[in-house]
Amino acid sequence: MKRKSLSDAACPIARTLDVVGDWWSLLVVREAMLGVTRFDDFQARLGIARNILTARLKTLEERGVLERALYQERPPRHEYRLTAKGEALVPVLIALGIWGTRWELEGPPPVKIVDTTTGEDVEQVFVTRKTGRRVDAALVRPVPRK
Amino acid sequence: MKRKSLSDAACPIARTLDVVGDWWSLLVVREAMLGVTRFDDFQARLGIARNILTARLKTLEERGVLERALYQERPPRHEYRLTAKGEALVPVLIALGIWGTRWELEGPPPVKIVDTTTGEDVEQVFVTRKTGRRVDAALVRPVPRK
Repeated sequence: MKRKSLSDAACPIARTLDVVGDWWSLLVVREAMLGVTRFDDFQARLGIARNILTARLKTLEERGVLERALYQERPPRHEYRLTAKGEALVPVLIALGIWGTRWELEGPPPVKIVDTTTGEDVEQVFVTRKTGRRVDAALVRPVPRK
Repeated sequence: MKRKSLSDAACPIARTLDVVGDWWSLLVVREAMLGVTRFDDFQARLGIARNILTARLKTLEERGVLERALYQERPPRHEYRLTAKGEALVPVLIALGIWGTRWELEGPPPVKIVDTTTGEDVEQVFVTRKTGRRVDAALVRPVPRK
């Protein structure tokens, strides 16, 4: 089942890693997903050097993952929020977290994944587009579009 | 909805990035997912320097994502295959690819995600664990367990 690889320019995985492929960028997005908006809070929670955080926030803003808004004029202070494009990274972060919980962490899972409107536990699955039948992940693969 | 961050040692996202958080490692896993097994094929398809590929394969083997098996004795030649732990990264790669297709690529999607046993298009969704009700990704978040 070996297939020809897409060039990296055409591969959506490679293109995504090009935007958020470093450790710090994805952890910044993780914090934004959890509601952090301010530079000092990102900095304190991540324990990241201020210059590195500045660079990552700038790149994530340039790539349209975060948007920056003035929340105080004197002195000027900005907050960072996920755009729709950034919000769309939640399934990526959840997939990463599910894998790490199963394969890397010891002890009970530190978090659960919920529907925030009802508190119900949710899981991330594959279903057929037409009928909604569940498909085991081991059977799922990307294939060239005809 | 700001919440206390997990320490990175306890965060499954951070722990996962620690294993597969660099660009090349995930692209190596992408190739393995598509059926590539041999060093020269990984090398040719990724256009990666041989010393970097050697290092990434070694780390992925040490972390239990790939397993190495002798397929030829003289001269010794090995092949690399995804372990169960590596196979479990497929949902992560698919999530990355879906995001890149929607937000980074121009033109028609280069691949589709299918059930390889039936060829049906599949999508990656969230459903409630108990009832299977679909939940919009915008409503899904990790929350501390109890």
